Amino acid sequence: MTKVETLERLVHVPLGERSYDILIGPGLMTRAGGEISTRIKGRRAAIVTDENVGARYLDGLMDSLQTDGIEAVSVTLPAGEKTKSFDYLTKVCDVLLEARIERNDTVIALGGGVIGDLTGFAAGIVRRGVRFVQIPTSLLSQVDSSVGGKTGINARQGKNLIGIFNQPDLVLADTDVLDTLSEREFRAGYAEVAKYGLIDKPDFFEWLEKNWREVFAGGAARIEAIAVSCQAKADVVAADERENGRRALLNLGHTFGHALEAATQYDSSRLVHGEGVSIGMVLAHRFSARMNLVSPDLADRVEAHLREVGLPTRMNQIPGELPPTDVLMDAIAQDKKVKAGQLTFILTRGLGQSFVADDVPASEVQRFIEEMRPS
Amino acid sequence: MTKVETLERLVHVPLGERSYDILIGPGLMTRAGGEISTRIKGRRAAIVTDENVGARYLDGLMDSLQTDGIEAVSVTLPAGEKTKSFDYLTKVCDVLLEARIERNDTVIALGGGVIGDLTGFAAGIVRRGVRFVQIPTSLLSQVDSSVGGKTGINARQGKNLIGIFNQPDLVLADTDVLDTLSEREFRAGYAEVAKYGLIDKPDFFEWLEKNWREVFAGGAARIEAIAVSCQAKADVVAADERENGRRALLNLGHTFGHALEAATQYDSSRLVHGEGVSIGMVLAHRFSARMNLVSPDLADRVEAHLREVGLPTRMNQIPGELPPTDVLMDAIAQDKKVKAGQLTFILTRGLGQSFVADDVPASEVQRFIEEMRPS
Repeated sequence: MTKVETLERLVHVPLGERSYDILIGPGLMTRAGGEISTRIKGRRAAIVTDENVGARYLDGLMDSLQTDGIEAVSVTLPAGEKTKSFDYLTKVCDVLLEARIERNDTVIALGGGVIGDLTGFAAGIVRRGVRFVQIPTSLLSQVDSSVGGKTGINARQGKNLIGIFNQPDLVLADTDVLDTLSEREFRAGYAEVAKYGLIDKPDFFEWLEKNWREVFAGGAARIEAIAVSCQAKADVVAADERENGRRALLNLGHTFGHALEAATQYDSSRLVHGEGVSIGMVLAHRFSARMNLVSPDLADRVEAHLREVGLPTRMNQIPGELPPTDVLMDAIAQDKKVKAGQLTFILTRGLGQSFVADDVPASEVQRFIEEMRPS
Repeated sequence: MTKVETLERLVHVPLGERSYDILIGPGLMTRAGGEISTRIKGRRAAIVTDENVGARYLDGLMDSLQTDGIEAVSVTLPAGEKTKSFDYLTKVCDVLLEARIERNDTVIALGGGVIGDLTGFAAGIVRRGVRFVQIPTSLLSQVDSSVGGKTGINARQGKNLIGIFNQPDLVLADTDVLDTLSEREFRAGYAEVAKYGLIDKPDFFEWLEKNWREVFAGGAARIEAIAVSCQAKADVVAADERENGRRALLNLGHTFGHALEAATQYDSSRLVHGEGVSIGMVLAHRFSARMNLVSPDLADRVEAHLREVGLPTRMNQIPGELPPTDVLMDAIAQDKKVKAGQLTFILTRGLGQSFVADDVPASEVQRFIEEMRPS
């Protein structure tokens, strides 16, 4: 958290034979061919991207692969959450098989979380698994979905209900590409960065309070923030790869957040994931104060920082009307298991002292939401 | 291999946290509810079956589950290889999600290899994996596809090209249901039983030569043969779960066999899988003799046994015309990696002494097929 000397960072995710490296730094996209060819034997690759990201980066990536002797094909899909479907999964698998991608060849996800989730799933099921490299192009996907191995698609019953755990062989987080993100998209990713501080890294949260402008501006502080975030998630995932315990901490702010996303029909003009997480994290801290676990000052402090960077922190900042409280409660109950009127929530006992509470009375949550929601 | 005292057998497949049991014996279908409820916590189940098997066994299985407090839904699919498609995978996933099958609930595959492969794949991807029980109803699926965890569907580029490794939580091999198989279907499964002897169990092959009529008749000898086969496959899989080495031995007879299946367009009126394997095993032994690895007498002995049980052993027994030899060679090359004119084959140095030969000259194979094929 002190002065950063070198620009490029490496985070190792230790998962036995599924271990892999995350490289974080500027210009990685143009060096992708070299980084891949030194680590993966096969000389073929297939790139999966979306229309927005592909228009900007596909040609350069193809050039880099070709320079290092990797023959690549590509498929460009529509941008957006609807692409995480069985139809596009079928299409991607077909492209990979037509390109004769074998076990030691590489499938590259070039894009944000949607492309990463869909492509990682396809790479894990074609020939029962081929090599998989992620080049995440949003801050959110660099600090969140590129670590942990969760891949999948949506079903009509809900998001991410079909998929597998498939760890990548390599992640190239090129920090230059973040310069082209919109302010809103960068901020939404930042909510997940702040989350790692609030889970169990109080020093990191304090560092963000002081240095967030530099993180937004780019350069060494941004690389540092991404590296710390990836390392934080890697530590949690290494301890609990299949999500049986500690990994639940990563859901800080997400139970409320997911409910708000569902309540706004995943309409990104009203609310994007990171914004829901921001409001959710403030609610988690306020609810912890309500349960006398922390002082209300801590909730104020967390809210002040998220508000300062420009993130929404309250339900009344969501444009349009929210559904009644019971509908929000239903969404919360669907997101998490309800056992005899008790909910599992991530609460906190102090700055960076989050914990899994599996006995939160649903009635308390309902009363709390009733008070916090716009009247 | 000596006298069998008790009827029911248990084969344990030791794969660490993915370990599971295979129960083999009469009447297991009617005890399925009890066997499942003692091993799996969830009280919901979904049965996937096909029209033929479902008509015969679905009601009884539902009753058994209900008796033991498991609430079950079912989905019945068309019988046949075409069901191993993305369309039916999508359908099965939808049924499982609609039935609110959760992580600790059970998906049951009731049928042969097609149903087992499709259902195992669906069970492995819904909610990133729910509990999975196989009730294989053909001899082939009891001794082969129920052990090893390979699941998947077909693509237009080839069979089984999309899937995952997903070990079941339990396999119930009810030997009573085999009484309703056609002679031809039973024999086709028997080819895989004989294969385990030919791979590395010469005593078992000798026992089969003496006792095959009892195996076909049912009762203790059949249960013994299935248990030995499952144990043999379990031993190979435990040593090499992801198919990097020794597991290739299970392909004895399959390189030739798959090529013949492809050459007959997977038309089961001409050739079914086990028949292709039978011809393929004889060819593998004849080719081993040609390479001076064994005496021609061994190939004669293997052929004599397979012929005695009623299996085809020569290419000229396949109804209709076979394509030219280069087309067969192309099919062989597609099935196995070709490295600079060299093929990987399973050959043998004696009865039950198979080994992986990865330097077989393609030109030798071509000449051999030319000689063996019907002129």
